[in-house]
Amino acid sequence: MLNSPVALRAKSNKQSCQQKIKKQKHVTTNLDLSRKDFWRERGEALKPKLKHWIVKPIEAVTIYESSEAWQKCKTEPIWQSQDLNKRLWQSGDSFILDFGETLVGKIKLNLCPGKGIHNGAPIRLSLIAGELPYDVDKEPDSYSGGLSRAWLQDETVNIDILPGEYILPRRYSLRYLKIKIISEPRCSIKFTDISIIAEGVEEHIPEPLEQWDEQLANIDNAGLRTLRNCMQDFFEDGPKRDRRLWLGDLRLQALVNAVSFKRFDQVERSIWLLAGGVFEDGMVPGAIFLYDKPVGGNRVIDYSLLFTPMLLEHVQFSDNKEIGRELFELAAFQFSFLRPYIDNKHILHDPGKWWTFIDHCKPLDRQMPLQAIYIYCLKALIKLAQLLGGDERIPEWQEEANAMARAVRKYHFDPKTCMIFSGPKQQQSSATIAWMIAAEVLTKAEGKRALETLENTSEAILPNSPYLQHYLLNAYFKCGENAKVEAMIRNYWGAMVNYGADTFWEIFRPGEDFFSPYGDVRNNSSCHAWSCTPSYFLRNLK
Amino acid sequence: MLNSPVALRAKSNKQSCQQKIKKQKHVTTNLDLSRKDFWRERGEALKPKLKHWIVKPIEAVTIYESSEAWQKCKTEPIWQSQDLNKRLWQSGDSFILDFGETLVGKIKLNLCPGKGIHNGAPIRLSLIAGELPYDVDKEPDSYSGGLSRAWLQDETVNIDILPGEYILPRRYSLRYLKIKIISEPRCSIKFTDISIIAEGVEEHIPEPLEQWDEQLANIDNAGLRTLRNCMQDFFEDGPKRDRRLWLGDLRLQALVNAVSFKRFDQVERSIWLLAGGVFEDGMVPGAIFLYDKPVGGNRVIDYSLLFTPMLLEHVQFSDNKEIGRELFELAAFQFSFLRPYIDNKHILHDPGKWWTFIDHCKPLDRQMPLQAIYIYCLKALIKLAQLLGGDERIPEWQEEANAMARAVRKYHFDPKTCMIFSGPKQQQSSATIAWMIAAEVLTKAEGKRALETLENTSEAILPNSPYLQHYLLNAYFKCGENAKVEAMIRNYWGAMVNYGADTFWEIFRPGEDFFSPYGDVRNNSSCHAWSCTPSYFLRNLK
Repeated sequence: MLNSPVALRAKSNKQSCQQKIKKQKHVTTNLDLSRKDFWRERGEALKPKLKHWIVKPIEAVTIYESSEAWQKCKTEPIWQSQDLNKRLWQSGDSFILDFGETLVGKIKLNLCPGKGIHNGAPIRLSLIAGELPYDVDKEPDSYSGGLSRAWLQDETVNIDILPGEYILPRRYSLRYLKIKIISEPRCSIKFTDISIIAEGVEEHIPEPLEQWDEQLANIDNAGLRTLRNCMQDFFEDGPKRDRRLWLGDLRLQALVNAVSFKRFDQVERSIWLLAGGVFEDGMVPGAIFLYDKPVGGNRVIDYSLLFTPMLLEHVQFSDNKEIGRELFELAAFQFSFLRPYIDNKHILHDPGKWWTFIDHCKPLDRQMPLQAIYIYCLKALIKLAQLLGGDERIPEWQEEANAMARAVRKYHFDPKTCMIFSGPKQQQSSATIAWMIAAEVLTKAEGKRALETLENTSEAILPNSPYLQHYLLNAYFKCGENAKVEAMIRNYWGAMVNYGADTFWEIFRPGEDFFSPYGDVRNNSSCHAWSCTPSYFLRNLK
Repeated sequence: MLNSPVALRAKSNKQSCQQKIKKQKHVTTNLDLSRKDFWRERGEALKPKLKHWIVKPIEAVTIYESSEAWQKCKTEPIWQSQDLNKRLWQSGDSFILDFGETLVGKIKLNLCPGKGIHNGAPIRLSLIAGELPYDVDKEPDSYSGGLSRAWLQDETVNIDILPGEYILPRRYSLRYLKIKIISEPRCSIKFTDISIIAEGVEEHIPEPLEQWDEQLANIDNAGLRTLRNCMQDFFEDGPKRDRRLWLGDLRLQALVNAVSFKRFDQVERSIWLLAGGVFEDGMVPGAIFLYDKPVGGNRVIDYSLLFTPMLLEHVQFSDNKEIGRELFELAAFQFSFLRPYIDNKHILHDPGKWWTFIDHCKPLDRQMPLQAIYIYCLKALIKLAQLLGGDERIPEWQEEANAMARAVRKYHFDPKTCMIFSGPKQQQSSATIAWMIAAEVLTKAEGKRALETLENTSEAILPNSPYLQHYLLNAYFKCGENAKVEAMIRNYWGAMVNYGADTFWEIFRPGEDFFSPYGDVRNNSSCHAWSCTPSYFLRNLK
């Protein structure tokens, strides 16, 4: 904990870097980390009062195997929810309720004795809350993934008193709820009501635009429901799994929020909280876990850089320059971590000291994507400085950005195909092209050409996650390829909707129903912040 | 629900009884059931404020198979509880804590991240609370008994936030606690504290008498702990399983309470509650379930009769005649259910309409035991009437009791052996002799002889439950066989103590470690009210 102002300078580990950048004056910054507690307090002061609303199930469903269905699990209605309080249940019975949409909230059960003599024994129930049918169809104890099995939303509860109303203490993200009666008190039992007490910063999802057809309306709706469900005490990445404030996700949520819920206060809260979680060396964390106090914190170097465009966009959207001024030096400081690894030719070499995320993709060469993100973010810093009234370092930053852009074009660029090659193996990837277009290293025309080349390069590394899909979409959008943007949205996010999604998934690889980076597909989050961005494009394409 | 006074008379179903009693005037009674709500309210007004105290584990134990040990489960210490907060746990690990004594209360866990990176995932734990080592040693899902599996005290919990203090919402009866870590948040986890928040009407167990040796002191201590643990919101039969107010158990608890805790207010509360739960035909229930409002209610005809001696003793112990007067007619009315089934020879024939408990023993012939209980309780009614200032029906009741006693001696008694034979097969049983001695159908000398005969009759039906053991003990006590009483206590209850019991069990058949009337021994209650009575005799033998 730092209690006095500290003027941090880039660390001396730049001596260990073999290829040095010529001009050291770029590193000049005046970050005052003694403001850290103030930033955190600013975030805490914006804690939202969550709304709560009751959602009843639509119907009970059965799940059967179907080769057409996502994860081979197809649902079919078997009885309507108004029949619930006519049905009696005994040990061994089970049923699955469909709440009609994915929700975040608590489970409320009202139950009473059914027929027979109630002998006073407790009732034991097992519950599985699932975002997708497969989640509730498969026995949770078969879990074999790498992440904690406790992310699976299943509970075993013992209930002592009937009749009674029971609200389970934990929060779930669910559309389906399977209840199995493990043992009953001699008499059968009856559920007079089963509801979700849904919660979030907002309840109502903005209406679709008039000009849209049903598919676009559905995609927009699923995107905004995804965002709504992630807007909890802070902007979560996934309300089922992770439940962390990730900077990379927050940036995309903030973009969609600006065209929908417009809860800029909550974006601001999350920005302050990230700033308040700054590491002692001045790096903004890639993620912090906030229930109920900050725990952990990941170092993700590309996310730390993205703090700058996120701050810029927030100032632009909300017109609140104060937060821009307060956090400007923190933003500017993020570049100092990588600056020592930029060589004399203005090429950045990933030091491998921190996680360079870019995408969930092992074979992806991250050299050029990271170079592009650096340039893109540095340009955002310049814009932010200009918006706030200028800064004497702007020329230096401009020179740095330009030099790095020129270096890309000189050493890594094929003017004919407009392809940019990354790393020793000259890898071609969506990640490189998407970010080079964002960073305006390629002109609009070059970008178009590069995207075309990419489409025709079978060995190119394509996006794995909806997160990188967003930046690829952004590239087409920036190049004016609006029809392609719409087609990509229909093709990628539309495919999820066709599979029944009403919120967008953390991971979606068409044809790979059971792919998971976590070893078990049930730990994929099926309502995940970084997948909510089609609404941003659809609402800007109008 | 009856709102106006009703003078109930014995039901007309006596017409269906083949053999009639001569004098119908015995049935005269004036029960006013409109007092029912007042009785219940009197009981509710005496609701106790429970005491709470913290109990820490003594040590961690391992359980191994041993042919010497009860249920073949022997415990052995493996580390001391002060080492708990030095130990780190990972998925798959488990440990068993021994709290040194059987307790009733809630489980409190304090846990925090151990070594490694805490990735924010929830923690999933399984917990088994057990009264005996076998309860925690065996996998609860292997349960195959007839009663609800939910009586088994196992929970699966998911904990979202570390570090944190978690108090499980339910109450348990336990000495042993097994905790298994199902999944951890990448890092190991550490328990900084695990405690029981014990609860009950009383905390401290009265000291043993000076003249006792260690065995008697231990037996008394276990008996009083049993009573203490059952003294909760009302006098429960077993704090693990059943948790009901049983009249038969309450009577024995009241006897022990009178020589130990002397919480006559709580005995009174339970008597009022039973009276308040009276059925519409005027029968006092054998049991009511009181969490959190009265549910169910069993008809146990021998228990309904025992309402009278229990009331008499309470008036004697507490010197509170008001409750005696208020409930006198209710007590007197209980005889009217069986009176129509007493034949011209003054022999009572169990109509089989209600449960006649006597003992957990299928082959037991209940004719003579029930006859004896009827006489015994009728004599208590006479004593109560006398204590309260007399009653004009006393001579009739005396005549009825005497006639029934004479009938036993005339038709069912062998003056040589002093044996009394029950039912068509002339069954000899401890139940018959124990109750006939209590009812003073046999003189002290005859009783002694009968008990001797019983000891030498290999085909005699002996007690199965500690409940009937109590009445057998009472018979020896009444006959002045104090040395035998002490020997029986050492032999029967002492055997439980030798097996490690610190509370007495609902069911104890030496050599039958796995006997259960419920199909699975884990649903036997190992801290059970009706087993607490050695203290009553030991403290009266002095």
